[in-house]
Amino acid sequence: MEEIFPGHPRAESLRIRKRIAEAMEMGIVVPEGLTAHGRGEAFDYLIGEKTTEVAKRAIEASAAALLMASHPVISVNGNAAALVPSELVELSKICGAKLEVNLFHRSFRRELLIAEHLKKHGGGEILGVGEENAVRLPEIQSERRKADRRGIYKADVILVPLEDGDRTEALKRMGKFVIAIDLNPLSRTARAADITIVDNIVRAVPLMVEILKEMKSKPTDVLRKMVKSFDNEANLAESLKFMSRRLLELAGETPNYLSGGTKG
Amino acid sequence: MEEIFPGHPRAESLRIRKRIAEAMEMGIVVPEGLTAHGRGEAFDYLIGEKTTEVAKRAIEASAAALLMASHPVISVNGNAAALVPSELVELSKICGAKLEVNLFHRSFRRELLIAEHLKKHGGGEILGVGEENAVRLPEIQSERRKADRRGIYKADVILVPLEDGDRTEALKRMGKFVIAIDLNPLSRTARAADITIVDNIVRAVPLMVEILKEMKSKPTDVLRKMVKSFDNEANLAESLKFMSRRLLELAGETPNYLSGGTKG
Repeated sequence: MEEIFPGHPRAESLRIRKRIAEAMEMGIVVPEGLTAHGRGEAFDYLIGEKTTEVAKRAIEASAAALLMASHPVISVNGNAAALVPSELVELSKICGAKLEVNLFHRSFRRELLIAEHLKKHGGGEILGVGEENAVRLPEIQSERRKADRRGIYKADVILVPLEDGDRTEALKRMGKFVIAIDLNPLSRTARAADITIVDNIVRAVPLMVEILKEMKSKPTDVLRKMVKSFDNEANLAESLKFMSRRLLELAGETPNYLSGGTKG
Repeated sequence: MEEIFPGHPRAESLRIRKRIAEAMEMGIVVPEGLTAHGRGEAFDYLIGEKTTEVAKRAIEASAAALLMASHPVISVNGNAAALVPSELVELSKICGAKLEVNLFHRSFRRELLIAEHLKKHGGGEILGVGEENAVRLPEIQSERRKADRRGIYKADVILVPLEDGDRTEALKRMGKFVIAIDLNPLSRTARAADITIVDNIVRAVPLMVEILKEMKSKPTDVLRKMVKSFDNEANLAESLKFMSRRLLELAGETPNYLSGGTKG
């Protein structure tokens, strides 16, 4: 690995990229995970590499849904484990959610590596490893069908950072409430989920932890109202408009006709 | 590698991604190349995965510049070699350009692998391998400085598909005429180049071959006029506006106030 020069205009982005590349050497991340990360980088650039107000509203609604859940589960793939292992562990503790290893490119070795990585970062029981409690989701091909009967299979609310579209749609057909973290507001996952947080997981997960801490004392009817009043389609459209406006700004045009449009 | 289901909505994109992942197993592509590819995918999606009219104008100007050059060189990195090896060889033959291996993450092994890969796809002499003809470009760090004295070092026109910003800027300071193929109209390479083709290399390179065939018979003053009249800054702004408008369309809004704006 090469050194990252602190003066480089993209130093923070390069540091995150390095963490992913190192996780690939460890066997946690697969090559396809690097490509997915690159796609995320491009969309992150389009939102200015900051959590937008639009994303913050989605995070607040997600926190309310997680607090109201009976069996919340956090699905963890290779990229998420590489980028925010301790943050996901903290999130799971604060909202009583189980952590489940959930891989698009599945192997028992990767399941074990990711579970160990999460435990090294403070995680307790990690679901989704091995065959003992494995069930198959209907209508999905190959090993992407796998779910843990104690976890995703019986969950009512599932947080999926960086999930495949087929799986998200299958979870929806099973009646799950799905919260996605996906920088691409156009992905099938983003469109199929009940709540889509269009943000980088390295910012969204820590912010969700902070918001959960504040919201824990709120009464159920307030939380319920927050979830019910959230309109994912409208929220996604706001993210797209935000990116669209930013592109015009970067093109050197001030899009006055759009100003004020993102606060919804 | 898993099979790609032909019915998958992103089958073509997945096939290209697979070619890059296989090239990584061969040692041609480095992990960072996969991330760069993912970034490209996101921007390609924003232009609709088709060559825009804006990009076509840039390809035409590039073809004219290559035909007018005394010492044209095509710089080839790992991703370009993985995706369009025979197309780059054909391009080099039709405009009399040399092919030079030019790597951000350089090693002698990768230089050799890429040169062999190009030869396997019909390439003749491949520059940029080993130390015998190597010179160092000024003001760039580490191995990214390397250039071949018979190629990039003495070239007047250089085509760089997928180039690093530092290197592109260094080539400009050396007085080279730089043609970049870069899906990100905001990258430093895109902004520093004389002509930037905002398109996927899998479409842009074959189209450039076709255009070169048509243009070979054109008189020099017509070619010169095509190059002189090309305004890269304006062309990049058109690409950004195209992406911006597409995002709005995908958000469900018809941006009437922008219609007709891309033909510049």
